[in-house]
Amino acid sequence: MSHNTFGHLFRVTTWGESHGPAIGCVIDGCPPGLALTEADIQPWLDKRRPGQGKFVTQRREPDAVRILSGVFEDSRTGGQVTTGTPISLMIENVDQRSRDYADIAASFRPGHADYAYFAKYGVRDYRGGGRQSARETAARVAAGAVARKVLGEAVTLRAALVQIGPHAVDRSRWDWAQIAHNPFWCPDAEMVPIWEDHLERTRKAGSSTGAVIEGEAVGVPAGWGAPLYGKLDAELAGALMSINASKGVEIGSGFGSASLSGEENADEMRMGEAGPIFLSNQAGGVLGGISTGQPIVARVAFKPTSSILSPRRSINEAGEEIEVRTTGRHDPCVGIRAAPVVEAMMACVLADAFLRHRAQTGGGAFEPGRPGRA
Amino acid sequence: MSHNTFGHLFRVTTWGESHGPAIGCVIDGCPPGLALTEADIQPWLDKRRPGQGKFVTQRREPDAVRILSGVFEDSRTGGQVTTGTPISLMIENVDQRSRDYADIAASFRPGHADYAYFAKYGVRDYRGGGRQSARETAARVAAGAVARKVLGEAVTLRAALVQIGPHAVDRSRWDWAQIAHNPFWCPDAEMVPIWEDHLERTRKAGSSTGAVIEGEAVGVPAGWGAPLYGKLDAELAGALMSINASKGVEIGSGFGSASLSGEENADEMRMGEAGPIFLSNQAGGVLGGISTGQPIVARVAFKPTSSILSPRRSINEAGEEIEVRTTGRHDPCVGIRAAPVVEAMMACVLADAFLRHRAQTGGGAFEPGRPGRA
Amino acid sequence: MSHNTFGHLFRVTTWGESHGPAIGCVIDGCPPGLALTEADIQPWLDKRRPGQGKFVTQRREPDAVRILSGVFEDSRTGGQVTTGTPISLMIENVDQRSRDYADIAASFRPGHADYAYFAKYGVRDYRGGGRQSARETAARVAAGAVARKVLGEAVTLRAALVQIGPHAVDRSRWDWAQIAHNPFWCPDAEMVPIWEDHLERTRKAGSSTGAVIEGEAVGVPAGWGAPLYGKLDAELAGALMSINASKGVEIGSGFGSASLSGEENADEMRMGEAGPIFLSNQAGGVLGGISTGQPIVARVAFKPTSSILSPRRSINEAGEEIEVRTTGRHDPCVGIRAAPVVEAMMACVLADAFLRHRAQTGGGAFEPGRPGRA
Amino acid sequence: MSHNTFGHLFRVTTWGESHGPAIGCVIDGCPPGLALTEADIQPWLDKRRPGQGKFVTQRREPDAVRILSGVFEDSRTGGQVTTGTPISLMIENVDQRSRDYADIAASFRPGHADYAYFAKYGVRDYRGGGRQSARETAARVAAGAVARKVLGEAVTLRAALVQIGPHAVDRSRWDWAQIAHNPFWCPDAEMVPIWEDHLERTRKAGSSTGAVIEGEAVGVPAGWGAPLYGKLDAELAGALMSINASKGVEIGSGFGSASLSGEENADEMRMGEAGPIFLSNQAGGVLGGISTGQPIVARVAFKPTSSILSPRRSINEAGEEIEVRTTGRHDPCVGIRAAPVVEAMMACVLADAFLRHRAQTGGGAFEPGRPGRA
Repeated sequence: MSHNTFGHLFRVTTWGESHGPAIGCVIDGCPPGLALTEADIQPWLDKRRPGQGKFVTQRREPDAVRILSGVFEDSRTGGQVTTGTPISLMIENVDQRSRDYADIAASFRPGHADYAYFAKYGVRDYRGGGRQSARETAARVAAGAVARKVLGEAVTLRAALVQIGPHAVDRSRWDWAQIAHNPFWCPDAEMVPIWEDHLERTRKAGSSTGAVIEGEAVGVPAGWGAPLYGKLDAELAGALMSINASKGVEIGSGFGSASLSGEENADEMRMGEAGPIFLSNQAGGVLGGISTGQPIVARVAFKPTSSILSPRRSINEAGEEIEVRTTGRHDPCVGIRAAPVVEAMMACVLADAFLRHRAQTGGGAFEPGRPGRA
Repeated sequence: MSHNTFGHLFRVTTWGESHGPAIGCVIDGCPPGLALTEADIQPWLDKRRPGQGKFVTQRREPDAVRILSGVFEDSRTGGQVTTGTPISLMIENVDQRSRDYADIAASFRPGHADYAYFAKYGVRDYRGGGRQSARETAARVAAGAVARKVLGEAVTLRAALVQIGPHAVDRSRWDWAQIAHNPFWCPDAEMVPIWEDHLERTRKAGSSTGAVIEGEAVGVPAGWGAPLYGKLDAELAGALMSINASKGVEIGSGFGSASLSGEENADEMRMGEAGPIFLSNQAGGVLGGISTGQPIVARVAFKPTSSILSPRRSINEAGEEIEVRTTGRHDPCVGIRAAPVVEAMMACVLADAFLRHRAQTGGGAFEPGRPGRA
Repeated sequence: MSHNTFGHLFRVTTWGESHGPAIGCVIDGCPPGLALTEADIQPWLDKRRPGQGKFVTQRREPDAVRILSGVFEDSRTGGQVTTGTPISLMIENVDQRSRDYADIAASFRPGHADYAYFAKYGVRDYRGGGRQSARETAARVAAGAVARKVLGEAVTLRAALVQIGPHAVDRSRWDWAQIAHNPFWCPDAEMVPIWEDHLERTRKAGSSTGAVIEGEAVGVPAGWGAPLYGKLDAELAGALMSINASKGVEIGSGFGSASLSGEENADEMRMGEAGPIFLSNQAGGVLGGISTGQPIVARVAFKPTSSILSPRRSINEAGEEIEVRTTGRHDPCVGIRAAPVVEAMMACVLADAFLRHRAQTGGGAFEPGRPGRA
Repeated sequence: MSHNTFGHLFRVTTWGESHGPAIGCVIDGCPPGLALTEADIQPWLDKRRPGQGKFVTQRREPDAVRILSGVFEDSRTGGQVTTGTPISLMIENVDQRSRDYADIAASFRPGHADYAYFAKYGVRDYRGGGRQSARETAARVAAGAVARKVLGEAVTLRAALVQIGPHAVDRSRWDWAQIAHNPFWCPDAEMVPIWEDHLERTRKAGSSTGAVIEGEAVGVPAGWGAPLYGKLDAELAGALMSINASKGVEIGSGFGSASLSGEENADEMRMGEAGPIFLSNQAGGVLGGISTGQPIVARVAFKPTSSILSPRRSINEAGEEIEVRTTGRHDPCVGIRAAPVVEAMMACVLADAFLRHRAQTGGGAFEPGRPGRA
């Protein structure tokens, strides 16, 4: 990963500030011939968009994506497809309200990257957080929509919130169907009112709260990823930790694996009709950095929104001690809108891993009991 | 990160299999003029070396490192220094006992990457795990020793085990001085006998157990790292997740930050004599992907050793169902020897971040209340 | 270099097709604090722009560049400066006349990349050459303008045409001041009417002609570039060969050096007041891939414009034999407009080399007879 | 390309100094399952080896290559194959005679990179040129041997000298079979005695002379390479310019294309039994940066050996004016031994292009008159 580029072969470069004229990304290395129009990207952006519920920021952006390059009419099908050249995507910023931020132009908001940007660059676009803003994640989601095209139908990506504040879901009640029926991507119906109550109290207190998201990729065949520094889980960890407010990443049993015995940890295998079957998935679908064919499972911890109404002690660029209180429109829990971002980052990492695997091996996998690569 | 290379400017490429003639690494991009001899590297390898206690593998390797290139006599000082050209380091393998592994040549050991390697490559050096072996981490430790030279005296790196199996240290008893006085890098003296007992039982049961390591870098100035995909924490996450048996990485409060309130999470700032002072460090020294000048704190979860004596169900390359029991010499807890590896990976990531920061900005940081870059 | 990105630290990613809605680039890794507005970029684009003379295409594009991100008001100076975040530049396409190209939608124009794109991708934006079009070079020129800011005043870049068709300039008459006084960037006033005549005949014959451009960078200090695969001349060769229609690159004496004796080739040195002085510059300012402080001299050969009125035999996507005659607006000599592009690519390579040198060494150079790095 | 690494997917990192204990390279990203033993690499090294004739250095190195990692017995065939993990190759230096170089420890030899290295690094291994030495090219040749395995039998690589000093071959007499029958890789039998005479005079005069090498790759299918900065010819130009003493690279008609008319330049096409046929190859097998299926033709200019007996004026590290006369063993024409190096670099670039093409497209090419990708 470079500063603003991620991926090796499916490479995404994002650009733009929260209150500049636009944000966007350029995707390089996408395979040609994949059907792609704005309509393939827009729905994912709509899922991430602010203004969708009372627990997310009321900033209203249509977040309409525009494809500026890299697609053309396929002479055989008449449909618009990728051409293999760079796909430039742009989303204009239309509701910035820059005036909300003028009073913090020279202040360092605690928990934000204001001070860190100042120390590094000496100058920063403070309007809405500028480049630090979670608004940049819209570009990730747009790129993720293209990555899904690369992965095709065989791979399914989904994400759920598994914890808000101290309240974790009960995994015995897990039902993926539930995530569409509440504004929290919650797979545990009984947890929904508890989270609502927690968020309502948090919002009223002018405070904020953290969250944990679990992402899953089903249908990834065995063989993607590569030892040692291109491990699939290492790439996922880097990509997921790069999301705004992310403070932790784990794969499979993750931190819980520290407490497991070797017997519990070793996912046993049997031979099924269609190939190897694992009897458990403590590994989260990755061993030695290579996919095993099991679902790939990652969890990401998000810290509480740093913009809170409660006054906090800080300093400013002049070195003066101040108090900061962040007014404006902010989600009490940034994690809620991060589920589509987690999915998108997983999609990008997997699309890249697919292309790298195809490069080195031609694609496919060796299967036990069969002579060669499938 | 490429497959076997990590870093952007301080680039480390490792090579070698557990039971091949040697392992090693090539370090490219190291600044010239740094004093470096084998004696600067060997002590870190000695810390990682097997055969140092009853809870680590009895394989005895001198792990003597040899510098094959990239250093020369400095005409001004007469001492041996880096020349800015690639530093090639080699460690010969001298005690492989390949015969121990013959019976698993075509079997997939549960929890290991045997099946994943087979699926991807179709061929693998099964002797001692080949390229999957934690032996590769010796090359990381050697590279880390060079990275420390790049960082200089101002940055201190250290790591402690904070959990073995279900037994976590009591942070109120934390004493860094303790880690030299027990074989577990344990900062909590009272935890030592508990871990000893747990490990003894684990070993007798032919089982294994996991661990959590906490690494810390003190003295990193504000300004290193860069948004958005080159975030310092994202780079750390990728590097630490690439260590063998690692299943999770967190920065600062990590997964715990999900349960924090916004007030708790926002590390408040005051102005001290020598610059900004933070009143807490939930962020673990990184905000927006850029260092803040506070200690950088990362934790890594390690799964239990996958090689266990207890028989586990599996399959082989022929697709037959088998039972696997891993004899041979194995640590009951791979995490114990991973502390120097965590330190080394942090050193490499930080050395790289330092060079990248110097490239883009010239180095130094802007300081509140002062006109320009220090 | 990746497919559509070049540079390591000063990284430029370009996107866009000749007849799509826009073209542009994203520059990542630019140092912060450099004064930058559209007015710093536009003049260079104006130099490259079509419609400026009778020997260049009559397509009229204002080629107005827009900065979409990466700049902000500097609180100290009030001027707009780079922030260290990605600089997104966009140029809208306003005069495409797509209808001119409809008849060649499925034909392979000889000398063009039509067949090669078809073979690779199966689909291509044929309008005006799509991604193959030299229009993409506008993005390079825009990036070059930013690279000049990184290099600062100390480095001067300039380029001249030294050959059109078979007519090479007489180097004894070389006068850099002349290049502003003719439409050919010609440093030899006596060659101008000869080139005019040659081009007029070429245009009337419906033919085209090639050219050679010489670029020079004066003021590059000793020490930039790095052995062995990051050699400054290797980077220049790759960058200059990537320009449309480029077929050859040479540094210093280039192909002529094959005929030199060792005595002639070895640029002798004497010690001057301000440091080493070279008595000749056969090396073109680069030895062992590292700059010597002398002017860096590169020449690039451009083939004739492939779009010609004369009918040429070819085939189409259906595999049928056809004749192709390219109507539309085309320069008889693409090399004429390439001088600003050569300058821009040299600027980008040098800006990148500067940042890489600063990263590894801290910047500056060791000087003979002085104790340390300047 | 990084400093000492080249390639994107087939990545080669070289290390080592001329008079250090060894030189070598690490190849990462090689596909698994390719038959590879030392015997596949050694013959190419033997071709490059010094001590093979009176016009090449009398230094005698066995240049015996050793594979340290990345290969293992294939359980199906019993033969040794690549495993997909890093291939570490090492060649020990056995005949260094460091004493020959002691007198130039602090002098800058004109034409060499001594001064440039000093200016950049402040310290350098001066023995035999250290890292600057053409000895490093042995590592390139070893890597090239592995790249040939990736390319397989279908691609044939060959190189010939086409000029030594001012004497160029007569292309009408070109006969590839001749290159094995003279020590100059000369395809023109009548030129051999002229070169012999020229070299003999050069040697007796204590001088040196330059050369031009032409490399050719036959059998590369259409579709490899990619616009715009990953163009196949741009990658070749960078790789070939990185060879020691290289000062120019051209593709196809190269600099000669500046003098061509558009009609001459446009390689016409007809439809043959087995696909498109080109009636000429001015393009040198690459259009728009993508291979066309024609032979890929590149020429590289080499300057005269910089180490000459004739005294040349220079300075030393103390800033004193001196005269330098290079004794020791040196080829009067470094180009003679560069033919295997040109072949090797072309092989590496092509192997990388093949993998990148397979990554993005799945491999193969679209063919005119047929529905899909072959």
